Amino acid sequence: MADHPPRAAYTVGSLLAVTVQVFNERGYDGTSMEDLSRAAGISKSSIYHHVRGKEELLRLAVGRALDALFAILDEPAAAAGRPVDRLEHVVRRTAEVLLAELPYVTLLLRVRGNTGTEQWALERRRDFDHRVAELVQDAVAAGQLRADVEPRLATRLLFGTVNSLVEWYRPGQRGTEALPDAVARFAFEGLRAR
Amino acid sequence: MADHPPRAAYTVGSLLAVTVQVFNERGYDGTSMEDLSRAAGISKSSIYHHVRGKEELLRLAVGRALDALFAILDEPAAAAGRPVDRLEHVVRRTAEVLLAELPYVTLLLRVRGNTGTEQWALERRRDFDHRVAELVQDAVAAGQLRADVEPRLATRLLFGTVNSLVEWYRPGQRGTEALPDAVARFAFEGLRAR
Repeated sequence: MADHPPRAAYTVGSLLAVTVQVFNERGYDGTSMEDLSRAAGISKSSIYHHVRGKEELLRLAVGRALDALFAILDEPAAAAGRPVDRLEHVVRRTAEVLLAELPYVTLLLRVRGNTGTEQWALERRRDFDHRVAELVQDAVAAGQLRADVEPRLATRLLFGTVNSLVEWYRPGQRGTEALPDAVARFAFEGLRAR
Repeated sequence: MADHPPRAAYTVGSLLAVTVQVFNERGYDGTSMEDLSRAAGISKSSIYHHVRGKEELLRLAVGRALDALFAILDEPAAAAGRPVDRLEHVVRRTAEVLLAELPYVTLLLRVRGNTGTEQWALERRRDFDHRVAELVQDAVAAGQLRADVEPRLATRLLFGTVNSLVEWYRPGQRGTEALPDAVARFAFEGLRAR
């Protein structure tokens, strides 16, 4: 046993954690399997033991973010009730998922490219946005959201606000627990004192 | 005269417009003088006639965005009046400048790197954010903004909301004139109907 190098066994999960970090630092296009092998401290052939290549790692990583986001829509508080309350739940939970899965959501938000996996990720993101846009529509139709901000724009501003957290939030920051509520308050009540 | 190629004379301004587009597409690091020469349709030596190199082009481009943003703070409606009104003016005008100078502000928001110019741009951005954060503080102190969203967070959410326009806004889009007002309404009044 003493002859074995003291190297932790790699799982897809731990490989993914390293991969996402490297993708976020160097960009997906700018990352080679060589870079991943060096960052993970395992050989390329060990990586190929787990996955077919870089694109599969991307799919697993953004898939993790997308699954967490879509799961929100199936939560009871998102699925039933007044549209405005369902929407507020989704906004708060989206912020929570973003903070909990920060590197994965960051990667998802930066996907731009032309590979099949990137196209698939963009499409699933659009699906999610579309589901939320429907909630916004329903809430406007029910008179629960102001009518002077066009629903599609409202949806974009909601996501813009929530997604902007990835620009400055760093894990372990003080007051993290309060962030999702503060974001929802900002978006639904606005900053002006009443 | 007929022997001269029918090529428009390049000015620093027109060279900058092409440069910013290429920087935004390929990233500053990923752009070579060769790329710029090809995109502009002029020789590298013609470019060097105007500027010392890539970094000076970056400085001119982000400088244009920064100058436009800082000019907002000197406008009468930003410099005097109730803090909340000054802040709302700054938010609305920041959105206007972003839409009017979209490629330049987009480039500014993407600056990340380690060259002197990038560090200088990041520092001037921080100065601007700091000036706005002071306005937020003043407005909270005057009881004009809600006290249950921490001022630093409020500042970040304000910029997050405004800056998110670069993610989806495309010039010529319908309803552009109404956007800055809608952004300000979202940020100060929130989406909930009253």
